[in-house]
Amino acid sequence: MFRDPDPCFDSPGGHPVALRPLRVGMIGIGTVGAGTLRVLVRNQALIAARAGRRIEVVAVAARNLARAASIVGDAVALTYDPMQVATHPGVDVVVEVAGGTGPARNWVLAAIAAGKHVVTANKALLAEHGGEIFAAARQHGVAVAYEGAVAVSIPIIKALREGLTANRIEWVAGIINGTSNFILSQMEGEGLDFATALAQAQARGYAEADPAFDIEGTDAAHKLALLAANAFGMPVNFADVQVQGITTLQRLDVACAKQLGYRIKLLAVARRREGGVELSVQPALLPATHLMAQVNGSMNGILVQGDASGLTMYYGAGAGAEQTASAVIADLVDVARLDGTPATQRVPHLGFHPHALRALQVAPRAAVRTRHYLRVPVHNDRCMAAVGRLLAEQGIAVEQMEWKVGSADEARQVLVLTGESPQGTMDLALDALQALPEVAGPCVQWRVEPLAG
Amino acid sequence: MFRDPDPCFDSPGGHPVALRPLRVGMIGIGTVGAGTLRVLVRNQALIAARAGRRIEVVAVAARNLARAASIVGDAVALTYDPMQVATHPGVDVVVEVAGGTGPARNWVLAAIAAGKHVVTANKALLAEHGGEIFAAARQHGVAVAYEGAVAVSIPIIKALREGLTANRIEWVAGIINGTSNFILSQMEGEGLDFATALAQAQARGYAEADPAFDIEGTDAAHKLALLAANAFGMPVNFADVQVQGITTLQRLDVACAKQLGYRIKLLAVARRREGGVELSVQPALLPATHLMAQVNGSMNGILVQGDASGLTMYYGAGAGAEQTASAVIADLVDVARLDGTPATQRVPHLGFHPHALRALQVAPRAAVRTRHYLRVPVHNDRCMAAVGRLLAEQGIAVEQMEWKVGSADEARQVLVLTGESPQGTMDLALDALQALPEVAGPCVQWRVEPLAG
Repeated sequence: MFRDPDPCFDSPGGHPVALRPLRVGMIGIGTVGAGTLRVLVRNQALIAARAGRRIEVVAVAARNLARAASIVGDAVALTYDPMQVATHPGVDVVVEVAGGTGPARNWVLAAIAAGKHVVTANKALLAEHGGEIFAAARQHGVAVAYEGAVAVSIPIIKALREGLTANRIEWVAGIINGTSNFILSQMEGEGLDFATALAQAQARGYAEADPAFDIEGTDAAHKLALLAANAFGMPVNFADVQVQGITTLQRLDVACAKQLGYRIKLLAVARRREGGVELSVQPALLPATHLMAQVNGSMNGILVQGDASGLTMYYGAGAGAEQTASAVIADLVDVARLDGTPATQRVPHLGFHPHALRALQVAPRAAVRTRHYLRVPVHNDRCMAAVGRLLAEQGIAVEQMEWKVGSADEARQVLVLTGESPQGTMDLALDALQALPEVAGPCVQWRVEPLAG
Repeated sequence: MFRDPDPCFDSPGGHPVALRPLRVGMIGIGTVGAGTLRVLVRNQALIAARAGRRIEVVAVAARNLARAASIVGDAVALTYDPMQVATHPGVDVVVEVAGGTGPARNWVLAAIAAGKHVVTANKALLAEHGGEIFAAARQHGVAVAYEGAVAVSIPIIKALREGLTANRIEWVAGIINGTSNFILSQMEGEGLDFATALAQAQARGYAEADPAFDIEGTDAAHKLALLAANAFGMPVNFADVQVQGITTLQRLDVACAKQLGYRIKLLAVARRREGGVELSVQPALLPATHLMAQVNGSMNGILVQGDASGLTMYYGAGAGAEQTASAVIADLVDVARLDGTPATQRVPHLGFHPHALRALQVAPRAAVRTRHYLRVPVHNDRCMAAVGRLLAEQGIAVEQMEWKVGSADEARQVLVLTGESPQGTMDLALDALQALPEVAGPCVQWRVEPLAG
């Protein structure tokens, strides 16, 4: 239905003016790189109609040149050496899709120093070296765009940096690691234990051979650091994110949460609190009827609470070659549109102009007040009262307390939903609980996040 | 926690350079205008930190000057005459929040002719006069921004114009009228009939005294015309949107849909189809477990299917003073960032450069193929077979057929979910059904939209 539009574009008076193509150098031509090239070619005319000019890949760095040649064709210069692409005189913008942090940092800094704009989907790189990279980009008057670094198909960086600029952002909460979310969805939907669900994720290609980055929460923490910077106007602060992955989550607690009307998700939270901003990644119970609890499988979802906008939510695929390409190319279109404008008039890298960025104090874990879920194994059905009494003594309000349905008398499980209390208070209470003679095994505690507006 | 940042901003080298404030003239200071002013003042420092300069309201046109003065304070020039604001030499950008189409068109065109950028949340104005207004803006090198015109708090125009530019958009489906959605949610949740639910919406301030625009689908159609233009690269085409409101929807069908596992929503759909693009607004059955079926009350939700991104969804408030202000101010920040850049390097008004816009053929209603829901009142429980036979004769596949639970023998209701068939075929089948001797009353038909990726 879409006829090939004229790739030459209008002047203010409406007459066509040919702009030269935006010339792209790519470092890496793996899954995401190949997907980006495929979408650029397939939707070439559409993309040019939006960008105002063609976007052409002119140089590619790859480890396997024969394989790369079969993907990129004859018109593209190929090299083993990423530095040649980063500094190529015929390149306007460098797309870094090789991954990793050490060498990638060098390539990106070299591209910036050579006056190239940079587009990357590399969250680890920006979480660890974002400050240095953005400063270099400012110095050289180039843009570093990274929509693909967070929740690939969802334009959430754009929403925070441009769509919600009227707002004081109160909090952001995201399901932003597709692998973990797939595993948790399988544990809840199919009643699997963690190891089996992980094996399924690996079998389906959702999890890497070494899944540690995903299941230990590091990947989500990288993304959270970028979200928080854009939401609050703070420098990228990955080091201070408190991270807890899903590896210790038990099937039993997924079932208990379900009984209470909740689902457990790996939730990344950036929230303004008294005493500092919370930056945390951990499994948390969400009300099963909440929109965020419907974000299942490998999908991602992000909730943003602004003082004017109220709650808004963004949902989409969190991984995939073309889904990432969607973000990478959107960044290229932005670059095609802005290339040549004064650097001061572009959207700042972190949404706020650098002089306004403030290193915000990060709230210590112990100070963060939330509701909590507790599971307390006890010896018999006369022990519930002791659990309630101890929590009261520790100053923790009990909002709901019930037995796990179907647990046998010799392995009774008391389930508790508490009111809000600081993590530090809860930690002390857990120690005290554990010492009760009525308690028959390790107590389990996870956060409850109502995610209300 | 956020300390007042320096409202003066950086040069490429990182040294502060004071940019003069962006000066705003407002036409209208009703609910949305007052909300915009309130948020601009409350978040002044934050907004300046993002925009790179202060945003100051310097002139306001209002019908009640005394009331306006109590809102805007002494430093702002007040006038009865919107034209004075539109052409005010001390104004960089005109915010039109007065509403209506005739006079608003004149004010906006006058502002554009005077070289002012324009920000508006007026969907009716742009749906009816968008072509003329955008052409004038191109001619004069100014921007016309309208994020607040569709699903106010959700940056959906930005998502389509900038976030999803890599994609061939296959379809967009939205719940984009909060009033209708509130009414439908009450009908489903509380079992109310339409008139009672409408009265509740009016009592809560969700519906205007004259609710026709909302409940007859016109408001959603205005917004759909803007979404479709940005999705497909077509001029704004409101005249060809096929519109059916919710006024004829019966409580019984809401209950029957529920029995079948569906919810009825007023759905705006823009979809590429063989034979043209579908542009339609009508009540439709969505699977009750679908994310879009969880968009309840006065909230809005929009699904976008792109060929690379896959499905993405956007959710947030569809109305409200500060929610609209969030979008209006985001547009002002965009203007503050771009003011002074060449017009050719800005995001085009409809996402595509004007020379690439194509007037796409709109599929006639009769040609649109969807699944369907039917409710057929019959005389007794031996009549179901006749209904099935007739549908088979008419070439309509039956996927599910069952009795309405609880209907008495003398008023039996046959419920049918069909496979895909063109609306024209369905219309003929409905005529034939209605003529069957077994049929005891008016047959009802609504679309079923699986909204699958």
